[in-house]
Amino acid sequence: MLMNAKAADQIPDIADIFSAKQRIGGEIRVTPVLSDPQLNAELGCQLWLKCENLQHTGAFKFRGASNAVALLDEQGRPGDVATHSSGNHGAALALAARSRNRRAWVVMPENSVITKVEAVRRNGGEIVFCQSNQQAREIGLADLVARGCIPIPPYDHGHIICGQGTAVMEMSEQIPGLDIIIAPVGGGGLISGSAIAARALIPNIKVIGAEPEGAADTALSLSQGKRVDQFPVDTIADGLRAIVGVLNFAIIHDNVDKVITVSEDGIVEAMALVWQRFRMLIEPSSATVVAAILASPEFFSGQCVGAIISGGNVDIEHLPFKP
Amino acid sequence: MLMNAKAADQIPDIADIFSAKQRIGGEIRVTPVLSDPQLNAELGCQLWLKCENLQHTGAFKFRGASNAVALLDEQGRPGDVATHSSGNHGAALALAARSRNRRAWVVMPENSVITKVEAVRRNGGEIVFCQSNQQAREIGLADLVARGCIPIPPYDHGHIICGQGTAVMEMSEQIPGLDIIIAPVGGGGLISGSAIAARALIPNIKVIGAEPEGAADTALSLSQGKRVDQFPVDTIADGLRAIVGVLNFAIIHDNVDKVITVSEDGIVEAMALVWQRFRMLIEPSSATVVAAILASPEFFSGQCVGAIISGGNVDIEHLPFKP
Repeated sequence: MLMNAKAADQIPDIADIFSAKQRIGGEIRVTPVLSDPQLNAELGCQLWLKCENLQHTGAFKFRGASNAVALLDEQGRPGDVATHSSGNHGAALALAARSRNRRAWVVMPENSVITKVEAVRRNGGEIVFCQSNQQAREIGLADLVARGCIPIPPYDHGHIICGQGTAVMEMSEQIPGLDIIIAPVGGGGLISGSAIAARALIPNIKVIGAEPEGAADTALSLSQGKRVDQFPVDTIADGLRAIVGVLNFAIIHDNVDKVITVSEDGIVEAMALVWQRFRMLIEPSSATVVAAILASPEFFSGQCVGAIISGGNVDIEHLPFKP
Repeated sequence: MLMNAKAADQIPDIADIFSAKQRIGGEIRVTPVLSDPQLNAELGCQLWLKCENLQHTGAFKFRGASNAVALLDEQGRPGDVATHSSGNHGAALALAARSRNRRAWVVMPENSVITKVEAVRRNGGEIVFCQSNQQAREIGLADLVARGCIPIPPYDHGHIICGQGTAVMEMSEQIPGLDIIIAPVGGGGLISGSAIAARALIPNIKVIGAEPEGAADTALSLSQGKRVDQFPVDTIADGLRAIVGVLNFAIIHDNVDKVITVSEDGIVEAMALVWQRFRMLIEPSSATVVAAILASPEFFSGQCVGAIISGGNVDIEHLPFKP
C-alpha cells in the first residue's frame, strides 16, 4: 500500500499521522490506558496514563522508528539504516529494521549502560562503539552514511514525529473527553507529534509539555521566542537530555500551550508514586508528566488528563527511590 | 440489581462467573493482554500475558474480593469484613470494602513485609498484628468474627472463585482462538475460577496449572486422587505457599488437565525474561506460568497460550535476578 508522505524535513499534519497509524498498525502494540480512582481523588483530576512503557522495546520510540523504516520500503529505498543513540531510539530502530528485513547500525558511546547495549543486540542491531562525546557520535554516524546507510535521527524528522503522534491518536479513541494532554519534552519528537494529533482530533484540548528544570531548553526557547541550541543539561531524566529539534520546536511553538518545568525531587517522587499505585516501574523521563501534575494541582483540577508515560527502561539497580 | 448467587461453600458455574463479571465490572480494571513477536518465535508458540499485575492493588485478588463484598451488599448483610493475610488478598479486601463503605480488618503477622502493610493501610484497611504462625492468625481472625466481622477467606470460597474466574472470561473476549490457559496454583482460587470459565467458554481448551516444586501440594493431591493437607513448603513464590482449598481442589480435580511443576531456578529465569522482554516486574508466583512454558516447550509448541500473570507485588530490594 502506497500512502502519501511529506519529506522528512517538512512539518507533518494530521493526515500524515493517520497514514502512519495505518502503516504501523500491525507492528506496534495498542498500549493500555490506566487510571486509579484513589489517586484521582487525591489529585483532584481524572488522570489516565497512556502506557508506552509497555510498548515494544519499552518506549514510544518504536512508533516513530517503525514509521520511518516502513516509509523507506514504500519509497523503494533499500539499504541499511543507522543512527546514534545511547538509549531507547537505538533499540527501537533495530527492531523496526529487523521487522522489515533490514540491518540497523547504532553508534553507541563506549560507556553506554550494558542493558541498553543488550537491548540493541537483542533486537538485531549492529553496534559501533565510539567515544563518549557528541562529535565522536556524529563522526561515527557520518562514517556509516558514507558507507551507504540511511540515517534515521531520533526526533528531528517528520516521519519520526508522525509515528510518535500515533500514541495520542490512539488515546483519543480510548478515552473520550480528554481536556488536557501532557507529554515529556526532550528532543521534542513525542510532544510535537502529540500536539499535532491532539489539536486536530480533540476539541478544546490543552497540550502541555513537562520538562526537567535541568534540561529546560524548550521552556527557555519558548520564553525567548526562538530555539536555543545550548543548555547546561543536568537531570536524572536521561531520555530528556537532548536539545529540542528544529522541526520539533517549530511545531511546539505553534501548538503547545505551556511547558511546565519540574524539579529532580519532583521526578523521583512521581516515579515512586507510579510504582506504588500502579506497580509499574517507569523511567525518570516518564515521571515528569506526573511530577508536573503534582506541582501544579490548580491547573489540572477537575480536568480529564491524558498523560503519556513515555518509557519503562529504568536501571533497577540504581533506583532513585526506595520501593 | 439482585442476581442469583450460590452459597459460598458451593461449586460455582459459568452463570455465577458471568454474574460476578457484571457485578464488579465498574470496579475492576479490564487488564491488557500483551504478546511479543520475538519471544513467540523463540518459544515456538503464541503467548499472551493477561496482565493482572496491572489490576488494582497489583493482583487478580481484587476481582474475588470485590465480588465477595458486593454480594454482601446484595444479600443485605451489613458489617465489617475480616481476613488474615500476609499478602495480596489483604490489600484487595481493604480496597473492595472501602469501595462499598465498609471497614476491612486484616490480621497480619508482625513480621510482614512493610510494603504489604502499607498497601493494606493505603487502601483503608485496619490491621491487627499477630504472631507469625498459622494458629495466631486464625485466633486473630476468630476474635474479629466473634466481634461481628464477616470473614472473607482468600480462596476457599465460591464467591472469591467466581471473581477470580472473570479474568479468563475477559481474556476469552480479548484473544479469540486460545488453545491453552495456564495459571499459577497456590490456594487454588485463580486456577479453579479460570478452569470453570475456560471449560464453558472456549472450545477444546486445555487448562494447565503451574506450581512450584517447593509447594507442589496440588500436583501431589492430583496424583493421589485426594487433597493432601500437609506439604513442606519452600519456594520463592510467596503467593503460592498455601495448601490448595477444599472447594478449589474439587474443581481442579474435575477441570484441570495438568499441573506442571517448576523449579526455583526456572521461576527466577522466567521473572528475568518477562522483565527483559516486557519491561514489567512480575512477582515470582506469576513467573511460574512462563517457567512452565520454558520447561515444557513441546507441550506448548504451535499453540495459542493465554497465561495469567497473577500479580506484580515484588520486593524490588531483594530481586532474585540482576536486571
